[in-house]
Order: sequence, then C-alpha cells, then structure tokens
Amino acid sequence: MKRLFDNVHGTGEATLSNIAMTTNLSFAGKTVVVAGYGYCGRGVAKKAEGQNADVVVTEVEPRRALEAHMEGYEVCTMAEAAERGDVFVTTTGNRDIVTTEHVERMDDGVVLANAGHFNVEIDLDGLNDLAESRREVRDGVEEFRMPDGRRINVLADGRLVNLASPVAMGHPVEVMDQSFGIQAVCVRELVDGDDYDPGVHEVPDELDREVAEIKLAAEGVEIDELTDAQREYMNSWQHGT
Amino acid sequence: MKRLFDNVHGTGEATLSNIAMTTNLSFAGKTVVVAGYGYCGRGVAKKAEGQNADVVVTEVEPRRALEAHMEGYEVCTMAEAAERGDVFVTTTGNRDIVTTEHVERMDDGVVLANAGHFNVEIDLDGLNDLAESRREVRDGVEEFRMPDGRRINVLADGRLVNLASPVAMGHPVEVMDQSFGIQAVCVRELVDGDDYDPGVHEVPDELDREVAEIKLAAEGVEIDELTDAQREYMNSWQHGT
Amino acid sequence: MKRLFDNVHGTGEATLSNIAMTTNLSFAGKTVVVAGYGYCGRGVAKKAEGQNADVVVTEVEPRRALEAHMEGYEVCTMAEAAERGDVFVTTTGNRDIVTTEHVERMDDGVVLANAGHFNVEIDLDGLNDLAESRREVRDGVEEFRMPDGRRINVLADGRLVNLASPVAMGHPVEVMDQSFGIQAVCVRELVDGDDYDPGVHEVPDELDREVAEIKLAAEGVEIDELTDAQREYMNSWQHGT
Amino acid sequence: MKRLFDNVHGTGEATLSNIAMTTNLSFAGKTVVVAGYGYCGRGVAKKAEGQNADVVVTEVEPRRALEAHMEGYEVCTMAEAAERGDVFVTTTGNRDIVTTEHVERMDDGVVLANAGHFNVEIDLDGLNDLAESRREVRDGVEEFRMPDGRRINVLADGRLVNLASPVAMGHPVEVMDQSFGIQAVCVRELVDGDDYDPGVHEVPDELDREVAEIKLAAEGVEIDELTDAQREYMNSWQHGT
Repeated sequence: MKRLFDNVHGTGEATLSNIAMTTNLSFAGKTVVVAGYGYCGRGVAKKAEGQNADVVVTEVEPRRALEAHMEGYEVCTMAEAAERGDVFVTTTGNRDIVTTEHVERMDDGVVLANAGHFNVEIDLDGLNDLAESRREVRDGVEEFRMPDGRRINVLADGRLVNLASPVAMGHPVEVMDQSFGIQAVCVRELVDGDDYDPGVHEVPDELDREVAEIKLAAEGVEIDELTDAQREYMNSWQHGT
Repeated sequence: MKRLFDNVHGTGEATLSNIAMTTNLSFAGKTVVVAGYGYCGRGVAKKAEGQNADVVVTEVEPRRALEAHMEGYEVCTMAEAAERGDVFVTTTGNRDIVTTEHVERMDDGVVLANAGHFNVEIDLDGLNDLAESRREVRDGVEEFRMPDGRRINVLADGRLVNLASPVAMGHPVEVMDQSFGIQAVCVRELVDGDDYDPGVHEVPDELDREVAEIKLAAEGVEIDELTDAQREYMNSWQHGT
Repeated sequence: MKRLFDNVHGTGEATLSNIAMTTNLSFAGKTVVVAGYGYCGRGVAKKAEGQNADVVVTEVEPRRALEAHMEGYEVCTMAEAAERGDVFVTTTGNRDIVTTEHVERMDDGVVLANAGHFNVEIDLDGLNDLAESRREVRDGVEEFRMPDGRRINVLADGRLVNLASPVAMGHPVEVMDQSFGIQAVCVRELVDGDDYDPGVHEVPDELDREVAEIKLAAEGVEIDELTDAQREYMNSWQHGT
Repeated sequence: MKRLFDNVHGTGEATLSNIAMTTNLSFAGKTVVVAGYGYCGRGVAKKAEGQNADVVVTEVEPRRALEAHMEGYEVCTMAEAAERGDVFVTTTGNRDIVTTEHVERMDDGVVLANAGHFNVEIDLDGLNDLAESRREVRDGVEEFRMPDGRRINVLADGRLVNLASPVAMGHPVEVMDQSFGIQAVCVRELVDGDDYDPGVHEVPDELDREVAEIKLAAEGVEIDELTDAQREYMNSWQHGT
C-alpha cells in the first residue's frame, strides 16, 4: 500500500508540482530525464509524460530498464541522457547519479532536482568545484555558472524537492491518510493482535487489505465480492477449456 | 500560435499546479469535472488525465462535446457531473456554469476553481446565499459551509486560479515568449510592413509561421523542408494510385 | 519477466487488435469494461485508454481495486458496469464474471470478449438460455438476440480472444522471445547448473536478469552500471542528509 | 466533423490494428516514426503512444512541428528519424517521404507503412533498385533485402495500410456513420434547402452541427444548453472582473 500510493502517485505529482511552482516552467515539450525506475521514478515518469514531456529513463537494473523501454520511454545511460535533458529528476536512493562528468555534457539552463532520498544523488560538491560562481536566481533555485557560460540550476539544494522546496507542503493528504492508516492498524495489531517478538515484521496482509477496504469505502467505490462458486473455482483447476 | 500553446499547455499545466499547490491535493483517483472543451478546457482535461484523474467534460456545443466523447472522456450535463466530481474547473468564458442548483448536488469537500475568464463562471453570490458560514481554510481556499454540513471550497475567489491563487506566478516563460514573440513581429510589421487601415487585423500567416520557426530553432528542433518535387506535387493531383 | 511483458503488453495489445479486427469497431469514445486488474487486466485497460476508450474496471481484491481507482479508472461492481459498457473484456482467470444477471442490464449491441483463461468467464450457457436466437454475424462474432430485441455479441465463443479469434496469430514475437528465452536459460541451468530436486522451482533471479540483459542488448538499449562507490552506498546507510 | 473523427480516430486506430495484425508485432517499446502531423498523423501518433510506443514525428510545417514538440513527441528530420525508427508510418499526402537516402540509414528489420494517400509516399522504385532481392514474407508484407543484408519490410505495397492490407476492413462503422451522415444531410439540403450555384460549397455549419447532435444522441450523451442569460453574456462584454 505505502509503496504504490505514496511513492508512485504522491511523490510523482508532488515532485512535478514543486518543480513547476519553483521554476515557473512548463513541462510540455521538455525532455525530462528520470534517473531510476523504482516506484518513485515510475510516478515521476508517468506524470511527466502526462504533462506532455518527452521522458528519458536511466536505470542500472536490467529488468526495470526493460520495463521502462516497453512502456515507451527512451532508456539510455546518464552520459547520453545528459546531452538531451532539460530537467533531471533523480529518484534512485543512491549517490552520484548526476556527476560533474554528466554536467559537462548538459545544455545551458538545465534544471536538476532530487526526488530520491538524500542530498547525495546530485554531486553538489563537484558541481561547486566546476562552477565559476553560484547565486540564488529564484527562491529555491540556485544557479551554478560554468566557466563556458552555461547555467546549471539546482532546486532545493539537491534535497527532496517535494519536501524541501520553498513552496513544498509535503505529501498530499490522500497519500498520508493511507500511510497513517497502515500505522494505526499496525499499532492496534500490536496491542490486540498476535504476540510479536521484538524486531521488524512485515505488515500482515489482512491489515494492508483492511486499509484498502476502508479507503475504497471513503472514496465511495463499491466492488464485487467473490461468490462461493468462484472461491471454489480458484482453488480447483477443473472447469473450462 | 497563441491559442495552441498559451491556452492548451500554459493554462492547462498552470491551472493544475496552482490547484495542487493551493490545496495540497493529489489528482490521482479524483474525478475532475472540466466545464468547456475549448483550448483551455482541452489543456486542463488532458493534463488532469495525465495526473491520473478521471475526467468528466461538460459542453454546450455538440461538436466539441463529441470530440471530448471520442477522446474517451465522459461527457454529461453539469447537473449530472455535479454529483460525481471532486474538483470542478470552469473554462468556458461564460457565466453561471456552476450554479446553486449544481452545488446542491455536490459532495462534501469538493473544490471549485475557475480557469476561464472572469469571476462569473461560478455563481459566488448564490453560493454565499446558500451558505450558513464561510471562512478561509487555507491561503487562497474559502470554505462555504452548507446548512446540511457539506463544505464547498472555492479557490482564488472564483478568479482565474492560475493567475490569482496565492502561489500563482502567471504563465510559464515558455508560453509567454511565444505570445510576446507574436506581438513583437506584429509591431515590426506595423512599422516596416504593409500599410494597414486602423482596425483589428488577423496576424498574417507568415508572421505566425516565423515565430514558430524561431521557437523551433530555440528549442533545438530541426525539421525537413519541402523539395521542389514535393512542392510541385502538392499543387498537382496526378501522381500515385 | 513473463508476467510483465507477456501479460501486460502482449495480451493487452493482442486482445485489442483482435477485437478491433474481428468487429471492425473503433475504441475511441467506447466505454470498455475490464474485469480484473491483474497483469492482463492492466494491459487491456491501459491500451484501451490509449485508444481513447473510457475504461471502467471491476475487481474483487480491494488493493487492486484501489490501484485502478488511483490510476484514474472508474471502479465499480459488474452490475453497475453492465449498464455502462460497450465492450466487456474479462481477464480474471475465474468463472461467472459476466452472468445473465449482468446481461439483463446491458445495452443493445454490446461486445463480450474473454482475455482471461478458460471459456467460463462469460456464462455462455446462461446467455444461451436467455436468448431467443443466436447466429454468427461476422466471422468470429456470435450474436445472441434477447426476447426484448437487444443483441449481445460474443467473440470467439468466449475463448481467449487473442488466441481464438479468426484473425488471431497468438502473441507477438517480441513477447514470445522473452518467454522462450526464460525457458532456454532454465533448461541450460538444469543441465549445467545447480542440482535441483524434482519439483517446481522459482526461476533463479540471475537467470531472469540475464534474459533481460540479452533483450536490452537486442533492442540496442544501453544502461549504466553501478560504480563501486554506489554498491558500497547501497549496503550502508551513512551518507547524505 | 469528417477530419476530426474519420482521420484522427478512424485512420489512427485502423492503421495501427492493421500493422499489428499484418506483422504480428507489438508496439510496446518500439520507436514509431510518424511522417506528417496533420489529422491522420496526430491520430497515428497518439494511438501509437497509447500502445506504449516511443513516437518520433517529422514535419515540414513549423507550427505543426512545434505542436508535436509541445505534445512531448520527439521531432526531427527524416534523415535522423531513419536511424532511430522501428516502424515508419507516412501520413503526409505528399511524395518521396521515405526515400532511398533514408532507407540507407535504417536498421535491419524495420517496417514501412503508408497511411497517407497514394503509393508515392514511400519511394518503392528506389527501394527496388537498392534491393538485391524481394519476397513476400507474410501475407501483405514484402521484404526488400539490401546488399548489406538488412531487411526492409513494406506493408501493402505502400498503399494505404488501413485499406489495402490483407486483413483490412476499411474504416470502422462509427466513423463511416458520421461521414455518411454528413453526406445525407447535404443531399437533403440540396433538395430542400437553399439554392446553390453549381460548384463546390462548404458544408453549412448548422448541418455539421446537426450530425454531431444526432451522433451524441445515438451515443446516449446528454449535454447542457445555453440559457438566455448565457447567450446574452456571450454577446456582451460587461460582466465580471
């Protein structure tokens, strides 16, 4: 539940709104490079495509790369993407995703933002060493000027743009209620439910499902229930040809 | 040029970012009702769908309604849409698009925003008369509380949400440069070009085209040119079967 | 690998092309009801939306239902969907998904197709009992005429429409090469690899990954590799803030 | 009416279904090059994107090129597109869109199809001169083998693939009914309506609108009507701020 809704939809939308409202740029016609195609990356890629951006994905895991390719995104190395992108969004949770080697290939005026985890996805120290000067050009937008005149804009100091930008409000409430809902039923389970040994436990499936049911009801969505015949069929393999 | 880029992409994206950043709501899973399917309405509908909203369109012009229907949007009357929507965006340039009759049918917590023209698309006087109380619940969000407890939220006093919301920055620069570009070449034409009688004139086609060419070059986009054989073919009807 | 590519893209596209080529109907403006939101259902829903259909999803599992809702699809019970759909595609792998009770609510001229598993998703016996007459109206399309005059069209006898329709060619080659690739490396593993006890084993992760790498190379897609510093970072939790 | 529905949706969907059913290829992950961004080209581009292809557009008219760019498609010359495409669809109505110069740059196994007008969009004579041999590899698919071993596949002899492919059924009925509807009301107008001089006349706006109204009713779509106050407002400029 958390990964699907929080990361795909919550982070995806909030990242793009924050970039839009910090820079006053439009995504239509921009090439948006999304580094990483996990839950966050998928959300950012899909929502950026939905704003009429041309989306390029970089990945290190071949199955995720293949998924992105089969979705119709262009998939390539960051070295190649660096030459094509207008906006770069890192979502990997790893470090050194955008390095000085990549910055050297970028166009004047590109925007770098991080929606991954910590402020190490973009190599800010390296960027600082490359730059002739740096200044804040808008609230939350720092421009690094290269010796050749190119300007590289970094949002929110390379921190999570959806949380650290000047207009950021954190995740939408629709996302937080699901996260908090999971936490609430887990606390109830610890108090009233099975005995758990100290340690980290997976959220029991029926609790995750319970939160989904409550959320559907809150959204006014009604769904079908399995009939007895269907339950039986699912547990057998004898009908149909 | 202006209508296509300014209204479809500029207004579309800016409207949604402003609603997102004013309300901190996510569009994923929301039913967004777009009133009017002109250039602005198309932009809002398409971008909302691209944020994973379920989009419902209302229109009075049958061909536009049919276009929206063929795009896969649900098309219905505002009376019906009122019962289904979570977020309502008016884009018609007309008045009384959302009236008290519609508000009576709306769910608790809906959001009303205007991206059309003046502040008469949503009947605020009527809404005020219906309401038991009103208060600002967030910066730029006014809540009208109905006698039955339902809360109707109006953004930016029913004025253009992409210009009048507290976080609004007006149109993105990519859109404004095209609008200003058209104005600049038109001024040049008035000074250097044909003699024009006083009055309103259409932008000459070659000027519109010139701005498109400059914009493409600025975006680094190269396109083909017609060959002589192709020009000749376009003016004849003799080749091929 | 198999589930993602075979079911989402392969079944999704093949199902829609087969329905299009069997019926000569266009999806634009149609309401397409997709029963089940597993891998096949997702593929059908996404590709139908991509053909400008208005997509309605039915599901029995609340988390999948919520996912579909958050994607922007309308989610409801089959009883409600029956009144709205033009084309119904079952993808559940279960039985009795479209029953006579649903058929009673359907419009004249609807199309029923199965992309799930066996020919029990649509209750053909029940439909036959309801019908006053039945006849083949196009190759692969059987019309059941109800006593009230409504015509219910069933494709490919309710068998997998992407395999059993008259124009069906089975899965696209791009999908089959991945399926066969997995089988090939698994056979190699049985011959050359670890000793396996008789029984059903999961495909080892590194084999699945190997096929993805081969496929990416065949598609001409190059991706980044983790650096040593990145590998180390992934196994630690100390950098960044 | 005709251009919007027939060309965008009718040709768009039919072209892709025919390519899919003639070649048994999937569009997911393919790079589809669409030559021309008029009504047909828009339809093909949009539907191909909706099948998860990566779409590249070529155009000679700068405003259309800019529109395609702002929609998020990559726009470039055919010479550049030739190196990237897997499937090429010409929709220009002009000649020599895919020439031998382009074929020289194409990958082994590409597919060429025409959805434009006549069989002169792809230079088949030139292709024949280049080729070492040619043979029909599937029904409706001719393979031209280049001296360097590359295989270039041409569908339906370069004729309109949605009409001339072996599985083609012409336009979907939903599209034809609108085209025929326009023709029917125009004949009625000639008989019962104004006196027309011999010659070509534009379809009167109210007839076009009438067909749209009939079609909406047939589709079960209800829309709002302008109130008197709204009609008056549209003709004035005095309300609102």
